[in-house]
Amino acid sequence: MKLLTFLTDFGNNSNYIAQMKGVALSITDANIIDISHEISPYNIREGAFILRTSVQYFPLGTVHVAVVDPGVGTDRRGLVVTTRSQILVGPDNGLLIPAAKHLGDFTVYEIRNQNLMLKNVSNTFHGRDIFSPVASHILNGFIFEQIGPIITDFIDMDFGTYKINDKSATGKIIYIDSFGNIVTNIDGMKLRQVLDFERELIVLIGEKKFKIPFIKTYNFVKQKDILSTIGSSNLFEISQNQGNAAKKLNIKLDDDVKIIFN
Amino acid sequence: MKLLTFLTDFGNNSNYIAQMKGVALSITDANIIDISHEISPYNIREGAFILRTSVQYFPLGTVHVAVVDPGVGTDRRGLVVTTRSQILVGPDNGLLIPAAKHLGDFTVYEIRNQNLMLKNVSNTFHGRDIFSPVASHILNGFIFEQIGPIITDFIDMDFGTYKINDKSATGKIIYIDSFGNIVTNIDGMKLRQVLDFERELIVLIGEKKFKIPFIKTYNFVKQKDILSTIGSSNLFEISQNQGNAAKKLNIKLDDDVKIIFN
Amino acid sequence: MKLLTFLTDFGNNSNYIAQMKGVALSITDANIIDISHEISPYNIREGAFILRTSVQYFPLGTVHVAVVDPGVGTDRRGLVVTTRSQILVGPDNGLLIPAAKHLGDFTVYEIRNQNLMLKNVSNTFHGRDIFSPVASHILNGFIFEQIGPIITDFIDMDFGTYKINDKSATGKIIYIDSFGNIVTNIDGMKLRQVLDFERELIVLIGEKKFKIPFIKTYNFVKQKDILSTIGSSNLFEISQNQGNAAKKLNIKLDDDVKIIFN
Repeated sequence: MKLLTFLTDFGNNSNYIAQMKGVALSITDANIIDISHEISPYNIREGAFILRTSVQYFPLGTVHVAVVDPGVGTDRRGLVVTTRSQILVGPDNGLLIPAAKHLGDFTVYEIRNQNLMLKNVSNTFHGRDIFSPVASHILNGFIFEQIGPIITDFIDMDFGTYKINDKSATGKIIYIDSFGNIVTNIDGMKLRQVLDFERELIVLIGEKKFKIPFIKTYNFVKQKDILSTIGSSNLFEISQNQGNAAKKLNIKLDDDVKIIFN
Repeated sequence: MKLLTFLTDFGNNSNYIAQMKGVALSITDANIIDISHEISPYNIREGAFILRTSVQYFPLGTVHVAVVDPGVGTDRRGLVVTTRSQILVGPDNGLLIPAAKHLGDFTVYEIRNQNLMLKNVSNTFHGRDIFSPVASHILNGFIFEQIGPIITDFIDMDFGTYKINDKSATGKIIYIDSFGNIVTNIDGMKLRQVLDFERELIVLIGEKKFKIPFIKTYNFVKQKDILSTIGSSNLFEISQNQGNAAKKLNIKLDDDVKIIFN
Repeated sequence: MKLLTFLTDFGNNSNYIAQMKGVALSITDANIIDISHEISPYNIREGAFILRTSVQYFPLGTVHVAVVDPGVGTDRRGLVVTTRSQILVGPDNGLLIPAAKHLGDFTVYEIRNQNLMLKNVSNTFHGRDIFSPVASHILNGFIFEQIGPIITDFIDMDFGTYKINDKSATGKIIYIDSFGNIVTNIDGMKLRQVLDFERELIVLIGEKKFKIPFIKTYNFVKQKDILSTIGSSNLFEISQNQGNAAKKLNIKLDDDVKIIFN
């Protein structure tokens, strides 16, 4: 099975998604899966986070096309990133890098070979004219060495550092999911080494201060109560049981977080 | 062809959908179809209705994963429901039952076999960690008897009763579709046995009273006129021709309905 | 590979999409791609434009089902349109015709053969009961001549005329995309024959007048600046770099456009 995924900021109401898929299916008989088309427009970091938290669940050999690309048509480069298990295709703006790092050792190729692109490359839609056909040719067995040169000066990206000691942890808000769960960059397994469930935390977010229980899952507090837990991406999260914590607490992306537990 | 569907309340902008699909495709080479990811958050009855009205159109052997799961991580059980034609996988909260009943005789297994789950099961996302892999192993031919014990004390669900006599019918509003069509639980074929098209009805919804023509299809009244008809799920519906009846009439889910025709 | 696409005005939150797909997959083992389900409700012209700009990217033999169908259940006819490369299925209201013309010579069949439809055809959902099964039987090799008679009096549609001379161009706004790019019906390649990039234009839209640079791609102006360019559908577009031009300029569909460049 050839497996091809797409992640974009086009919006699910966009016709551009189907154009990319039509191009791919004209080249290869892939099974196509959407990771998301609802990345906030031009938000490279959000796209990078969603890609990073999704790729690990896909099988060996999956090719992922990611397009959050405000620099399209300028001299920003296009990339193919190979890892030990999967391949990433998209613009050189940091979007692909956290996912690549998460998959282990990786190699970055600059896309130069025009035989892999559509004949008429537009200035505004490289997702359709370059990234989708390149990914499709790779699924058909195209040799990486002929895509273009290996580069090492690609644009890097990460989600900031977090710190955990035996009294507190600090980090930042890096994602708010579709339920309004507030996701931090604080590693869940490492936090659990110093912190048990079933206790109350003091949580500072930006200028705000909350007392929030730290529990195993949402439904262990009353409906509409605020709680904190380790979410499904192994990150410390703040949630509302059957509600939207981000709306309730009026929290925004990129705020600093501090958890005090001793 | 192995066919796997997903229904959730995650929202189409959610990255969790792709995680579930990646897990499935790491286990089986299925063709994946989305039933809906826009069930109102935590609304088990709405999810159950959408599943119930969709499954009958899918081929023999289709496996449906449904996740509207406010009780995730508590002691609520996970279920595999087998019917004569298709298989349903999801939480034990009523979500699967109307669809199962509609497909005929059914058997309910509690998911206990941990070999069918991901190695690290989170407390907050059993759709990805349990239901998707279980469904995928079933598509690969896994034997039902080894999933877990057959149970009979699963949580039941229905959409309420309706009554039809030769003067009137009573029921309730159970769904409002994407066009604003107001769908009741009153069976269309049975209603048509006592009621012809091309006549006016008195319709009481909650405290409101309307005179509404009962006709064969939307476009038999003027644009923006209110009408009633038998919708495509064989249920009595109230609609606006090329408009949104629920907005126009300010109708909400679960209101009681009475139709007077004699 | 059998390839089947769907375009509707049902909304991505609609359960009707899955019903159409289930019907199709009960007949044929197709690979299913969504073109869009977010056409504005009942907006046949918008659906026709999206279909017209998408079909060219799909491979030979693709069958497209399009359903924007305010006349469902009346005596409006159902159509199969065959072209040299692909097949279109949907209502006789103009929806399919611009795509058909774009694909070259075409033949229009009226759907009459009831063996191709579901047994119980509803009055309100021919997408599921007629168009999806007809498309699926075509993918299985059903002979066009047995669908129904060839007709020539189908309902036509176009997107209006545009004019280009050596001083100006006139046309109209025919689409606003998911990024707020304002798309006109003025052909990009023809405009470029009389107009170079890197210059300022006077653009009149409805009653409004703007000075706007005409450039190769978005990012060649400052962030949030307004620009004009040739978009990815080879049409003259007005955009905002990393913003929403339609909101910023308060532009609506169907407004007349005049570009003055000399």
